[in-house]
Amino acid sequence: MGIRLLVTGGTFDKEYDEITARLIFKDSHVADMLKLGRCRLDVAISTVMMKDSLDMTDADRKAITRCCQDSTESQILITHGTDTMVDTAAYLAEHLTGKTIVLTGAMVPFAFGSSDGMFNLGSALSFVQVLSPGVYIAMNGRYFPWGRVRKNRESGVFESIP
Amino acid sequence: MGIRLLVTGGTFDKEYDEITARLIFKDSHVADMLKLGRCRLDVAISTVMMKDSLDMTDADRKAITRCCQDSTESQILITHGTDTMVDTAAYLAEHLTGKTIVLTGAMVPFAFGSSDGMFNLGSALSFVQVLSPGVYIAMNGRYFPWGRVRKNRESGVFESIP
Amino acid sequence: MGIRLLVTGGTFDKEYDEITARLIFKDSHVADMLKLGRCRLDVAISTVMMKDSLDMTDADRKAITRCCQDSTESQILITHGTDTMVDTAAYLAEHLTGKTIVLTGAMVPFAFGSSDGMFNLGSALSFVQVLSPGVYIAMNGRYFPWGRVRKNRESGVFESIP
Amino acid sequence: MGIRLLVTGGTFDKEYDEITARLIFKDSHVADMLKLGRCRLDVAISTVMMKDSLDMTDADRKAITRCCQDSTESQILITHGTDTMVDTAAYLAEHLTGKTIVLTGAMVPFAFGSSDGMFNLGSALSFVQVLSPGVYIAMNGRYFPWGRVRKNRESGVFESIP
Repeated sequence: MGIRLLVTGGTFDKEYDEITARLIFKDSHVADMLKLGRCRLDVAISTVMMKDSLDMTDADRKAITRCCQDSTESQILITHGTDTMVDTAAYLAEHLTGKTIVLTGAMVPFAFGSSDGMFNLGSALSFVQVLSPGVYIAMNGRYFPWGRVRKNRESGVFESIP
Repeated sequence: MGIRLLVTGGTFDKEYDEITARLIFKDSHVADMLKLGRCRLDVAISTVMMKDSLDMTDADRKAITRCCQDSTESQILITHGTDTMVDTAAYLAEHLTGKTIVLTGAMVPFAFGSSDGMFNLGSALSFVQVLSPGVYIAMNGRYFPWGRVRKNRESGVFESIP
Repeated sequence: MGIRLLVTGGTFDKEYDEITARLIFKDSHVADMLKLGRCRLDVAISTVMMKDSLDMTDADRKAITRCCQDSTESQILITHGTDTMVDTAAYLAEHLTGKTIVLTGAMVPFAFGSSDGMFNLGSALSFVQVLSPGVYIAMNGRYFPWGRVRKNRESGVFESIP
Repeated sequence: MGIRLLVTGGTFDKEYDEITARLIFKDSHVADMLKLGRCRLDVAISTVMMKDSLDMTDADRKAITRCCQDSTESQILITHGTDTMVDTAAYLAEHLTGKTIVLTGAMVPFAFGSSDGMFNLGSALSFVQVLSPGVYIAMNGRYFPWGRVRKNRESGVFESIP
């Protein structure tokens, strides 16, 4: 009865490549972050993909959905880029039932120090333990049922929609 | 219907005094941490005291209780040293009803970078929004109803007791 | 008889813009870095420009040269992008005499935490105090007279050339 | 013709023990710091001791002196607590000749993030390469010949004495 954590990439896991001066993906930082947070939950981590969420396709969302279906856990946390997090939440809600699924991400890469990643990870892991089955987004300290949230692209903040 | 955040000190808010080479309290870091976490909850912060929890007296616990009673919010988060967090939780449970109160803290000062503080703050703020009235401790990614938790002093980890 | 510090941009001063997910320039971090380093040298900071060194033109190099000439200090430190640092050093050497000029930079933005910036700043400030007049590059803990150094683009390391 | 780096402890290398809430020594961070600084100097590190400099005895200073004598390198950098750094410098100057010896330290542990350690390490490594034989202290971006420096205990700053 642990938690499944699916890594899909996003700003959360980006790092700086000092040779090319670009933001790239290497390995996920999620395991290190859980250790830093002294997390003692039973969390099983799977890296599904390492993608900028703007590059995510329906095939990618299908792959994430299958991972959710195949997972024996009924509490699932997904780290995801913020730009299309709302779209993936909608896709998952359409194809899944009976599990509590929480998506979270970060505005600043964890590797850059001043990140919101640790805060969001702590938040999302908490919500996934107590919310009833459904698909949710956890950002900015809040949770939003899918379909009632959007990312404000000017401010970078997730906000409720009626 | 916001959240009241009561600061009482603890490792969470300690910093290093480079002149005396000791750990001291100055101002709380909680407001900065919420900003770093891009928190958009309606959180009102009050600093009740800045104390190592080993130095807390019953008078201190009475003061914290009064702040909880006086607060118009029904969701209250308390940052607290880990050593006597369980005792304060018991004291609060004895003297308060009808509010959701979550205590959290940190094993490493936020100011020292590798802190569990951001993770715990995100976690505790999430639990306080969704748990039913009662007194809880949020540490290590988990929540514990008061009276069913202790701090393991060898490992520094909070664990369930039957 | 203090030190003049000319800021020209470079990776050193880049930061992450969380709305556009790009690396941008805002204000220089150099003053904060000197404070963090508990630096007690008499350093006067001037921001000449904030540029990626790949975008630097001869007009820019002329502007930097003029700042060096106009400066009353005979010890001048220049923060600069690493990609064309060697070119600017050559330009300065051609147009200036009688001053000790040290160029330095960083492979990782200071704002990203794991930076070599603090190390390089401490190093360059030390070299500029003790080297005889001339133009030098200080990177990787070493100093190189201009004209005898190149940046190895595969490794990101500055190395001597005969 | 590399550099010998002797580790003796000091604030530089202290870390926070989250179980006892005390500052302790474990392994030195110097090797990691050189890597972070992208240092490409030929530096050989020896840990002589891990001591708070207030606890240093004449036997300790004798041991450090012997390491300096035995070292084949003529450029020696010593990391040292700031409280008695001046005393050790005097002791070394009395017992050694013909080598360039630079002592440095930190006001804040490197492990606490906001440290002056990286800055001082870059500075001291630079001075040791270019100063003529003698014993020096490198702190606050400056170097001081031994015997002409003291630590101001109120401000934590090293200052010249006539």
